[in-house]
Amino acid sequence: MKIVVAPDSFKGSLSATKVSSAIKEGIIHVFPDAEVITLPLADGGEGTMENLVYATDGEVREVEVHDPLHRRVKAKFGVLGDQETAVIEFAQASGLTLLTAEELDPIHASSYGTGELIRAALDQGFRKFIIGLGGSATNDAGTGLLRALGMKFYDHSGSLLTQNMLSFQQLAYYDDSSFDPRIKESSFLVACDVTNPLCGTNGATAIFGPQKGVNPNMIAQLDLALEALAQVVKKQSGIDLNHVQGAGAAGGAGAAFNAFFKAEMKSGIDLIMEAIRFQDYVQHADYLITGEGKMDKQTLSGKVVAGVSRVASAYGVPVFALCGVKEISAKELEQLQVSACFSIIPKPCDLEEALNHASEWITDCTVQIMNMLKYGNRELIR
Amino acid sequence: MKIVVAPDSFKGSLSATKVSSAIKEGIIHVFPDAEVITLPLADGGEGTMENLVYATDGEVREVEVHDPLHRRVKAKFGVLGDQETAVIEFAQASGLTLLTAEELDPIHASSYGTGELIRAALDQGFRKFIIGLGGSATNDAGTGLLRALGMKFYDHSGSLLTQNMLSFQQLAYYDDSSFDPRIKESSFLVACDVTNPLCGTNGATAIFGPQKGVNPNMIAQLDLALEALAQVVKKQSGIDLNHVQGAGAAGGAGAAFNAFFKAEMKSGIDLIMEAIRFQDYVQHADYLITGEGKMDKQTLSGKVVAGVSRVASAYGVPVFALCGVKEISAKELEQLQVSACFSIIPKPCDLEEALNHASEWITDCTVQIMNMLKYGNRELIR
Repeated sequence: MKIVVAPDSFKGSLSATKVSSAIKEGIIHVFPDAEVITLPLADGGEGTMENLVYATDGEVREVEVHDPLHRRVKAKFGVLGDQETAVIEFAQASGLTLLTAEELDPIHASSYGTGELIRAALDQGFRKFIIGLGGSATNDAGTGLLRALGMKFYDHSGSLLTQNMLSFQQLAYYDDSSFDPRIKESSFLVACDVTNPLCGTNGATAIFGPQKGVNPNMIAQLDLALEALAQVVKKQSGIDLNHVQGAGAAGGAGAAFNAFFKAEMKSGIDLIMEAIRFQDYVQHADYLITGEGKMDKQTLSGKVVAGVSRVASAYGVPVFALCGVKEISAKELEQLQVSACFSIIPKPCDLEEALNHASEWITDCTVQIMNMLKYGNRELIR
Repeated sequence: MKIVVAPDSFKGSLSATKVSSAIKEGIIHVFPDAEVITLPLADGGEGTMENLVYATDGEVREVEVHDPLHRRVKAKFGVLGDQETAVIEFAQASGLTLLTAEELDPIHASSYGTGELIRAALDQGFRKFIIGLGGSATNDAGTGLLRALGMKFYDHSGSLLTQNMLSFQQLAYYDDSSFDPRIKESSFLVACDVTNPLCGTNGATAIFGPQKGVNPNMIAQLDLALEALAQVVKKQSGIDLNHVQGAGAAGGAGAAFNAFFKAEMKSGIDLIMEAIRFQDYVQHADYLITGEGKMDKQTLSGKVVAGVSRVASAYGVPVFALCGVKEISAKELEQLQVSACFSIIPKPCDLEEALNHASEWITDCTVQIMNMLKYGNRELIR
C-alpha cells in the first residue's frame, strides 16, 4: 500500500512537517509495511523553501545579508534536488519575524537583504528561481531588493534615494544601467496567492501595511510613494503596475518582479506542486491524506488542501482529510473532492487543550482511518 | 449492503433510538440502497422495555396502577413480538422520574405498582417475564411488589406491615398462602448489572439509597429493615439473601425475585440481545455500528458497546463506534473488538454545544465513515 501524506500546517499548533510525521505514525501503527510518502506543503508563504528542499531532497545554503533594518543577519536560500533551482523566501532576510513589535518600521524597513540573497544565488550560478513572498516586514515595493541588485532611484534634484520610503514620493526616475545583467538571463517563478494591486484602498499599504506597523495616518503618505514608483515605471518602461494583479504582494514587491524580472506569478500551491513534481508521487498512490487546522469555506479557495485534492482526484486517488476545526459541509467537501473528513478532536475541550494535543490526536485519528481501510474492505454490494 | 446499527444512548443528550436514527440518516446519505437495521439498545435500565418492543415489533399495553407514593398512575408494560413475553420495567410504576425531588421518600416509597403491573400481565395470560430493574425510587426490597401479588408481612404482635419500611425492622414472618399462584407457573429473566448485596456497606441502602433520598442518618435504620427481611426469609425458606449477588438491585427488589420467583439474573445487555435474537441480525451483516456518549475504560465492562461488539466479532463483522467523548486507548479498543472509533466532536467546544448538536454531528460523522467505506475499498496489498 502506498499513501501520500500532504497536509498544510495546523496554524498555531503544528508545522506541516510535524503534521505529516504525526499522520505517518498513525499509518505505520496499522500498516507497518505501507509505503508512506510525506510531502508537507506550505502555500507559498513561510516554510515554502524548507518544504521544497525537503520534498526534492535538496539542500539549504546560508549567506550573510542585511535584515529589514539593515543589520547583518544570516539568511538561507534553498537549492532544489535538481541542483538548478534556487528558492528564495522573503521571510528569510526581510521577514516580520526578524523584528520585535517595537522595531516594526514600515517607512525604513527594506527588502534589500532579499536582493542580496538573489545576488548570492546568481553568484553561485543559479538562473532559475522560485520566490516565496509571504511574511515580509517591508512596504518598499521591492525597491530595496532592486537596489541590492544595482538599480538606482533618483529624485527630481538628482539625489540618490535610499531606505526612507517617504522620500520615494519625490521619485523622478530610475537608472538600470548597473542592474545586475544576470537577471535578464534568469527566470523567476513567484508564488503569490493575493490579487491586491500596488496602490489604493485595496493595495499593499492599506491591506497588508497594518500588520507591518503602518498606522492609519501613514497609509496615505506611503501610498503616495508607491504611486510615484508606478508612474515612473510606466513612463520609463511602459508597464502599468496599477493594473497588475498581485503587484501589492509582499509590500509591493510583486510590482518589482513584474516590472524588472522575467517573472511568472503563480498560486503558491500550484507552483510548489509543480516544483516537487507532486503528480508523480500521487498518480500511483492508493490514498492521499491531507488536512489543515481549520477546514471551512476558505479551504475551497485554492490553498494546500484544495490543491492536492484536485491533483489526487484527477488521478482517481481517494483523499481523506484531517482537521482541528471542521466547519465544512458535505457539499463543500464534494466540491473539494475530499472523500472523507474527520476532526481530530476526541471530546469537548477548549482551544488550548486542542493545540497542546494536536500531534497525539492527529496520530490517533489516523489510526482510526487506517482501521477503516483495514476492516472496511468488504464486498460492498452483494 | 447490510448494516446493523446498535448503539447505547448518548447520556444527557440522545436516547439510543435517536442515536440510531441519526446514524441511519448518515448511512442512507451515502448508500441510499443500504439495508439498515436499527436496534437501539439499553442496558437493562430505563428504556429497556421500549427498545425490546421496538426491536421485536411487539406492542405496549397500559394499565392503571399505583406510583411509589400510592397515587394512581398509568404505567406501561411491553409485549414482545413473540406475543408470549411481557416486559416489565421498574421505572414505569416505581421509578424515580415519577417523583419530584421534594417527594423522594425512601421510607414510604413502595414497589407496589410494579407488582400490580406483573399481576395485570398475568391476568392477560403471560407467564414469561423480562424484568428491568433500573431507575427505581424505592428501597423496600420488593416488599411492595410482593404485597401487590398477595404476600403478607407481619410483626411480632401479629400486625400486618404495609408501606412504612421502618416498621419492617419488627418483621416476624411472612404468609405466602395468598401469594399469586400463577407466579409459580411463570419464569422471570431479570436484567441486572450490579452485584451489590442486599445489606451492609455495599448494599442497596448505602450505595443506591442516596439518589433516592436516603440521608446519612436513615441508612442504618433502613438497613436494619432489610436485614430483618433477610433473616425471616432465611428462617422460612432457607434462602440466604445475604449471599446473593445483585440482591441489592432496585432497592433490594433483586432479593425478592431471588427468594420468591423462578428468576434468572442476567446482565442486561446479554438478556436483551438474547430476547431480540440479536445474533440473527448481526451474522449476515456487513458492518455493525455502535456507540455511546462516552467511551472510556468503563466501556470495557460489559454494557451495550462491549456486548454488541462481542457478538459481531464472533461472526467476523467489523464494528465501528461513535462517541461524544473518546477517552479510550487503541489497546482498549482492541480488547473491545471495535475496529475503529470516532468522536463526533468537530471542533473545540463546550459540553453544552456538544449536547445540543449531538444528533447532527452523529449524522455527519457517520457520513464520513460511510465515505471511508465507499472510497476506501481499494485493493490493500498490491
